[in-house]
Parts: sequence; structure tokens; C-alpha cells
Amino acid sequence: MKKEFAVIGLGRFGGSICRALSEEGMEVMAMDMDEDKVNGYSTIASHAVVGDSTDESVLKSLGIRNFDHVIVAIGDNIQASILTTLILKELGVKHITVKAQNDYHEKVLSKIGADQIVHPERDMGKRIAHNIISNNVLDYLELSDEHSIVELVASRRMDGNTLIDMDIRAKYGINIVAIKRGKNIIVSPQATELIHQGDILIVIGADTDINRFEKNLVDE
Amino acid sequence: MKKEFAVIGLGRFGGSICRALSEEGMEVMAMDMDEDKVNGYSTIASHAVVGDSTDESVLKSLGIRNFDHVIVAIGDNIQASILTTLILKELGVKHITVKAQNDYHEKVLSKIGADQIVHPERDMGKRIAHNIISNNVLDYLELSDEHSIVELVASRRMDGNTLIDMDIRAKYGINIVAIKRGKNIIVSPQATELIHQGDILIVIGADTDINRFEKNLVDE
Ligand SMILES: Nc1ncnc2c1ncn2[C@@H]1O[C@H](COP(=O)(O)OP(=O)(O)OP(=O)(O)O)[C@@H](O)[C@H]1O
Ligand SMILES: Nc1ncnc2c1ncn2[C@@H]1O[C@H](COP(=O)(O)OP(=O)(O)OP(=O)(O)O)[C@@H](O)[C@H]1O
Ligand SMILES: [Ca+2]
Ligand SMILES: [Ca+2]
Ligand SMILES: [Ca+2]
Ligand SMILES: [Ca+2]
Repeated sequence: MKKEFAVIGLGRFGGSICRALSEEGMEVMAMDMDEDKVNGYSTIASHAVVGDSTDESVLKSLGIRNFDHVIVAIGDNIQASILTTLILKELGVKHITVKAQNDYHEKVLSKIGADQIVHPERDMGKRIAHNIISNNVLDYLELSDEHSIVELVASRRMDGNTLIDMDIRAKYGINIVAIKRGKNIIVSPQATELIHQGDILIVIGADTDINRFEKNLVDE
Repeated sequence: MKKEFAVIGLGRFGGSICRALSEEGMEVMAMDMDEDKVNGYSTIASHAVVGDSTDESVLKSLGIRNFDHVIVAIGDNIQASILTTLILKELGVKHITVKAQNDYHEKVLSKIGADQIVHPERDMGKRIAHNIISNNVLDYLELSDEHSIVELVASRRMDGNTLIDMDIRAKYGINIVAIKRGKNIIVSPQATELIHQGDILIVIGADTDINRFEKNLVDE
């Protein structure tokens, strides 16, 4: 049986979730109290409904308890977000993800039993900051406070060298787990693989080691 | 010489950038027209200034052209965001990152020469959607349309088996590049490494192969 999702609140964040879930072939009910927003998602979601989620009878009549996962993406109106979450819990929705506006909002949501609480602007701010600090890091996955996987662009200095030539693993204690070259991905490259300037190196290791590698071999 | 950053607009997104840059030891000037917002960042940023960024003389008097990178994180007031970006360009700021509210906003920003345009709510919506779809995926890094690195929680079925036992590479064409076990990270695990339920496996491969692996060995 296909999982059924509902997204309440079709701002930028909720709208993007609705679109992404739909693109992955999921059943999604999109709901907003603003008719224009709902119309914008009528061809994207499986159903698009105009309604006020703080009205228990509305949620009941939509059979909300039968959805596997409900995402509450109401922003500015914190009270509406909290009340909606409360009603969803009372109606027995199994999994509820809620967007929080601030720490206080998060605290309340967690007390009333929201399963997942997200801070999209805050989290994206952190990601962008990382990205801005090291000009060379295109994207990253934080494994722990001290370890990451990062995407780095191979510099001119690396051009034409193999991984052995540069002695990367011994010198820096990091591993290159993949190389992106145009549309190709080389997973677990051989130590004899020639690096070209502009290759994107997918590197795993301790942050301090990755930084050292970046300073010595990547920065120009 | 240390790089100097300026963040204009201290909402959730801009505030988070300001905090993250400061935590990494960067010089950051924080600016907002709202005095309360500015006060909130006075102990976090190197300088915190009350001012309207659409006023060219204000930006000039702050010596904004000497900053290496300015982030414009003004949200709802799209006109103010555009005008601020225009002034920063005219004053010769080298690198400008701007938050966009929608596609139209992005188009204008890119025409006037913003170097990097970001959609925090939209991008985070996509990330959360991915995350929601596969319950087992904790986090991921998209390498291409068809390849990713994902974090998966080892299932009960895997408990006590080695990577060889499960023949993961041959059967699924994927690689386990690291294992997170509590606070430890095992990079490039040996094929004889024993997997425990609850270990977090960092897997690289084609999305279809990762999905197959997830369906067969991870989902419970
Ligand atoms: N009680 C409610 N029932 C249904 N929809 C609601 C309710 N309250 C607010 N919404 C809708 O939620 C959507 C998102 O809210 P809002 O625009 O305040 O959040 P936001 O944080 O600015 O959004 P984003 O940053 O994601 O663009 C709006 O389209 C709004 O109409
Ligand atoms: N001309 C301006 N000069 C300086 N600051 C400004 C100007 N216009 C708006 N701001 C500030 O920008 C900040 C962010 O704007 P706003 O709250 O509209 O964005 P937002 O998208 O809702 O923020 P977020 O989603 O990141 O919380 C606000 O604190 C606001 O005071
Ligand atoms: Ca880190
Ligand atoms: Ca760090
Ligand atoms: Ca927002
Ligand atoms: Ca993908």
C-alpha cells in the first residue's frame, strides 16, 4: 500500500515539500486556508483542499487520521501551528512533522508530541555559512562534530597528478571516496587515477584534516 | 588577513548565518533596521549595526566595499532586497549572496549581478521531503541526479553480520564508506567489520542500488 502524506500550509517550505513528495510519486494531500495557494498546487498534489486546519471538524472530515504522515508547515501563525499539531495528535495521526519558528515554539511542539520538528531557515543558514566559509566546498554532509564528507573542486595544482603522486591518504589522513567528472561519477577511485582540474572530489575525514588538505592543495 | 563578512537582515535565516560564521571565528558585521534584532546579535557578531540597507549613504559610511562577502537576508520586502543588492554592486562589493523569495525575485537578482542566490525554505523543503520518504535515510548528499551518499541505520537483520557475510558490494554495487557507532566513526571499514543494529552506515552508490539495498536489508 502506498503511503499517504498530507501537507498543511503551502508557503515556500510546505509547498516545496508537497512538490518534492509528489515528484517522487507519493500520494499527497495539500491543504491551505488560502485559496490561491491551494490552486497553485491543484495539478501537483493528488488532492488540494482549502481549509482551516485549526478546525477539528475539517480535519476529521478529510479523514486525516488515515494519513501516514502529516507535515505542518504553517509559519507566522504560531498558535495555529500549535493548535493544528494538538488536533492531529488527538486524532491519532501516526507521524507528525512540524516547522518551528523559534526555540519557544519548538519546546511547545515537543511537549505536545510532534515527532519531528524542523527549523528550515536556521538549518539552511548553517549550511550556507559553511559553504561560504570554504569557497571550495560545494556541498557537505556532517557525520559528527568532527567528521564530514565534503565536495571540493580539484585545483590547478592537482591537475595531472594521481592520488599516489599527492600521497593524500598518508599526508592528510583523508579518503577520496568518489570523483565527479562532468556527468560521470567514479566511485572508490584507484590510487592511480589521474586528477583533472575542475574534478569534484568527494572527500571523507576529520574536519581538521580536510581543512589542512584544502589549505595545502585546493585553495589557489 | 581575515575575511570580513556582512550580514544584512537578521531574520531566522540571516541570523543563523551570522551565528554560524561567528562561531567559526569569522569577522561578521550584522545589520538590521530593527533595533531589537540588532541587540540580539550584539554579543554574537563582531559589530552589530542598526541601519536601513536601502540607504546608500549608510552602506558607504560603514565602508561596505571593504567587506569580502555580503549576505543579503531580507525576506518579505523584495524591493528592499533588490535595491540593497543593486547598491552593493554599485559600491563594488566583490561577492554578494542574496536570499530569494520566488523565481521572479531570483531572475531580477541574477540580472543585477548577485553572485549567489539561495532559496532556503525551498531547498530545505526538498531535503526534508527526501528524508521523510525513506524513513531510514537520516541525511544525504546528492552527488548527481542518479548518485548519492546516504546515512542509513543498520537494521536488526544486519546485526552480527560482516560486510562480507552480506556480500553488499557484489549484490548491490554500493560501498559503505564509513560507519558511525555512537561517538566513533570508522572510515573505510574492513570487509570483516561486524555490523551492529543501530550503527549508522554511510553508503555511496547509484540511487537505484541504494534503494534496493534499503528495501532488502534495511527496511523492517
Ligand atoms: N490555520 C491554517 N490552516 C491552513 N493553512 C494555514 C493556516 N494558517 C496558515 N496557513 C497557511 O500556511 C502557509 C504558510 O504560512 P506563512 O506564510 O505564515 O509561513 P512562512 O514561514 O512565511 O512560510 P515560508 O517561509 O515557508 O514561505 C500560508 O500559505 C498560510 O495561508
Ligand atoms: N532595508 C532593510 N535594511 C535592513 N534590514 C532590513 C531591511 N528590510 C528588512 N530588514 C530586516 O530583514 C530581516 C529579515 O526580513 P523578514 O523577516 O522579512 O524575512 P523572513 O524571510 O521572514 O526571514 P526569515 O524567514 O529568515 O526568518 C528582518 O529582521 C528585517 O528587519
Ligand atoms: Ca563538521
Ligand atoms: Ca565546523
Ligand atoms: Ca521564511
Ligand atoms: Ca537523487
